[in-house]
Amino acid sequence: MNREIFTALLQQHQYQAVRSILNVMNAVDIASLLSELDNKELAFAFRLIQKEKAAEVFANMNNSMQTCLVELFSDKELRELLEDLYMDDTVDMLGELPANLVTRILDTVSQKDRDTINRLLNYPEDSAGSIMTTEYVDLRPDWCVAEAMAHIKEVGIHKETIYTCYVTEKKRLLGIVTAKDMMVADDHVVIRELMEQEMITVNTNTDQEEVARLFRKYDFLAIPVLDLEGFLVGIVTFDDAMDVLIDEDTEDITKMAAMNPGEKSYFETSIFGHAKSRIPWLLILMFSAAITGTIITKYENAFAVVPILVSFIPMLMDTGGNCGSQSSTLIIRGIALDEIQFRDIFRVVSKEFGVSLIVGIVLAVANGLRIMLIYRNTALALVVALSLMATIVISKMIGCILPLLAKKAGLDPALMASPLITTLVDTCSILIYFGVATRVFEL
Amino acid sequence: MNREIFTALLQQHQYQAVRSILNVMNAVDIASLLSELDNKELAFAFRLIQKEKAAEVFANMNNSMQTCLVELFSDKELRELLEDLYMDDTVDMLGELPANLVTRILDTVSQKDRDTINRLLNYPEDSAGSIMTTEYVDLRPDWCVAEAMAHIKEVGIHKETIYTCYVTEKKRLLGIVTAKDMMVADDHVVIRELMEQEMITVNTNTDQEEVARLFRKYDFLAIPVLDLEGFLVGIVTFDDAMDVLIDEDTEDITKMAAMNPGEKSYFETSIFGHAKSRIPWLLILMFSAAITGTIITKYENAFAVVPILVSFIPMLMDTGGNCGSQSSTLIIRGIALDEIQFRDIFRVVSKEFGVSLIVGIVLAVANGLRIMLIYRNTALALVVALSLMATIVISKMIGCILPLLAKKAGLDPALMASPLITTLVDTCSILIYFGVATRVFEL
Repeated sequence: MNREIFTALLQQHQYQAVRSILNVMNAVDIASLLSELDNKELAFAFRLIQKEKAAEVFANMNNSMQTCLVELFSDKELRELLEDLYMDDTVDMLGELPANLVTRILDTVSQKDRDTINRLLNYPEDSAGSIMTTEYVDLRPDWCVAEAMAHIKEVGIHKETIYTCYVTEKKRLLGIVTAKDMMVADDHVVIRELMEQEMITVNTNTDQEEVARLFRKYDFLAIPVLDLEGFLVGIVTFDDAMDVLIDEDTEDITKMAAMNPGEKSYFETSIFGHAKSRIPWLLILMFSAAITGTIITKYENAFAVVPILVSFIPMLMDTGGNCGSQSSTLIIRGIALDEIQFRDIFRVVSKEFGVSLIVGIVLAVANGLRIMLIYRNTALALVVALSLMATIVISKMIGCILPLLAKKAGLDPALMASPLITTLVDTCSILIYFGVATRVFEL
Repeated sequence: MNREIFTALLQQHQYQAVRSILNVMNAVDIASLLSELDNKELAFAFRLIQKEKAAEVFANMNNSMQTCLVELFSDKELRELLEDLYMDDTVDMLGELPANLVTRILDTVSQKDRDTINRLLNYPEDSAGSIMTTEYVDLRPDWCVAEAMAHIKEVGIHKETIYTCYVTEKKRLLGIVTAKDMMVADDHVVIRELMEQEMITVNTNTDQEEVARLFRKYDFLAIPVLDLEGFLVGIVTFDDAMDVLIDEDTEDITKMAAMNPGEKSYFETSIFGHAKSRIPWLLILMFSAAITGTIITKYENAFAVVPILVSFIPMLMDTGGNCGSQSSTLIIRGIALDEIQFRDIFRVVSKEFGVSLIVGIVLAVANGLRIMLIYRNTALALVVALSLMATIVISKMIGCILPLLAKKAGLDPALMASPLITTLVDTCSILIYFGVATRVFEL
């Protein structure tokens, strides 16, 4: 939908046309279209969305849009919206709203919902409890399929998913049964016979990243969440797990580029916010690089005699940094995808050692030949080629070992990415280079 | 399941125990457990899996395990397996098998399946056609819910998903209806009334990455695929889209670390394979860095007079590289998540300019103070601080503009990541540094 046309229609009070447009649009697209409007237009447009779709659009809005709407809503409008919102979306929104609006919302919902919301808000941030929903279908084991289907017909519309149902007895989870199993089974089959007892469950304190990885590994549609006593208290659905996966990948990528990850998107983050997340690591890395500089000054005599030596510093530093970050990137990603564990450290090291020998020889020969051709100086070619070779092997070793050690120590492997490794590798490459040079040139 | 115990039970011919263990395990976990066995054990163990679960385990195996099993299977076993495998998994496997086994499989399946397989194999690699399945539920618009549910009961078990059903007339897609809608509707409601007509579809040639992004954006369970004449020919399900997303993210991360992405996992790739994917970019970047080196030699006189100048080269280069890759990483990720478009270029540039001023001032002041404290040399502090400031601003500009230009030019933004930007920034920082130094020190 073209945004200019939409705004024009809205400003000309062509409400019938706006309503028709909103009727044929997907909730995600409506939320994105409305994000371009000012507050007054937003409230107008939102009221023109069909009632059945309004809650879904609202759930897909960003926080500032939600805040603006909640402020403008009448009590009746707010009550209607909250009735249609899924519990996890409500709790998501409450986490970000100003305190006065949170109070207003808690005053609007029923006592039962208020209790549920308060319980959900109390789970630790980033835990399964904080992203789960309490709206799932539970079935009794002694029902037959027809009874179960009748139950779903009654309660299903208010549940976030009905495709995985939970068989419980006194809140204890006995098994799961999928809608597919019931739809293809005969009406008189008993749920107990149909249910799957091998289940993967998480508990309310499980880290959401761990939960998301289970979704990625097993392609689940939903996963049951037990409380610490083992009672079923909610489910996490795949859409929320997808969001967590995207956020976690973004967080990894951000950390790998030496920034502190933020909660907001690029444009939502202010200039000061961006600066704040980037400066700390830059400062640390800048002062570490200064150490490399100090080492260089020790070899002042060497480059006073052979000034050309200085000109190979950028090439050695960059190549070392690139080699190290190639290795660290592959290992960090492998760890994130559960393909590489700490116990694989020897397999990794021997593989990287092999790779670094091949890479080292190719690059050293290429560079040696170039120097021979340009400078016709065998000693110089030898110094650079040998230093390059050693730098490549060492940087690949550092690059593959550090993320695994971080993992073992319970730190985030992504912190051990290119910038840190580059700085470490710099020091090594300079030491090797001048070490070799002073020997070969007998300085 | 402990792998040693499992192998021991298998070697002691404790088939009953092995069977019981396999019965309670998830298909994904069984595939991963069996990957540790040798070929003979694998064939033994596979035959002990319950028939209902065998195809799913097979679909989750890696290519070498599948090849091994297909080679060892009798014709009868092969036929049974192929009957239970979903069409997209069969086609997936065929893409990787040696030619003689492909022929054997095509000889085993029915003429109808053979035609479907051949058609699916002909879609371009990485297209929606190549990852879709032809096994979906289609419904007639004039059926009532009860008729539709009866139809699903009959055909559903062989369909990859029954949660989204497709309403068609003469192969034309009229609308979609979810299992949830049908399960909560009255039996006599007509499908035409229930179906959703606003649909997002792709065609067989749509890039699989594009398809995966639709899943990420809209949280679909499945998406219909039309052929070029607009007839419904298949669906892509969310599990395949998830796999594509993971692969695409891995590919981006690999490219961002200056490697050519491969198809296989870290350990599956040979040492030569790794070396081959890493050497090309290293060579290109190494020779680019040599240009920076050549520039340095032009300023031989400068560092002959003030040798301490050389010691700040690593710090300037590293900080420039880190600043540039911070910006490029955020922009590349923003583009991948559809949060940043080319038309945002001015917003991006002005934001990054603001950030680079703040970051530049903080880092320049910190470094200036450090130099004043250690060397008590105001001119030196000024040279380093000014060069640092300029380097930071320029590297952030390069870092944010290049990925957007790449996107505009139809190239992969991930190619414009840290290594390339580091090399570019190096040259700039050296030029600025010696430019400022020769002026301030009047060299």
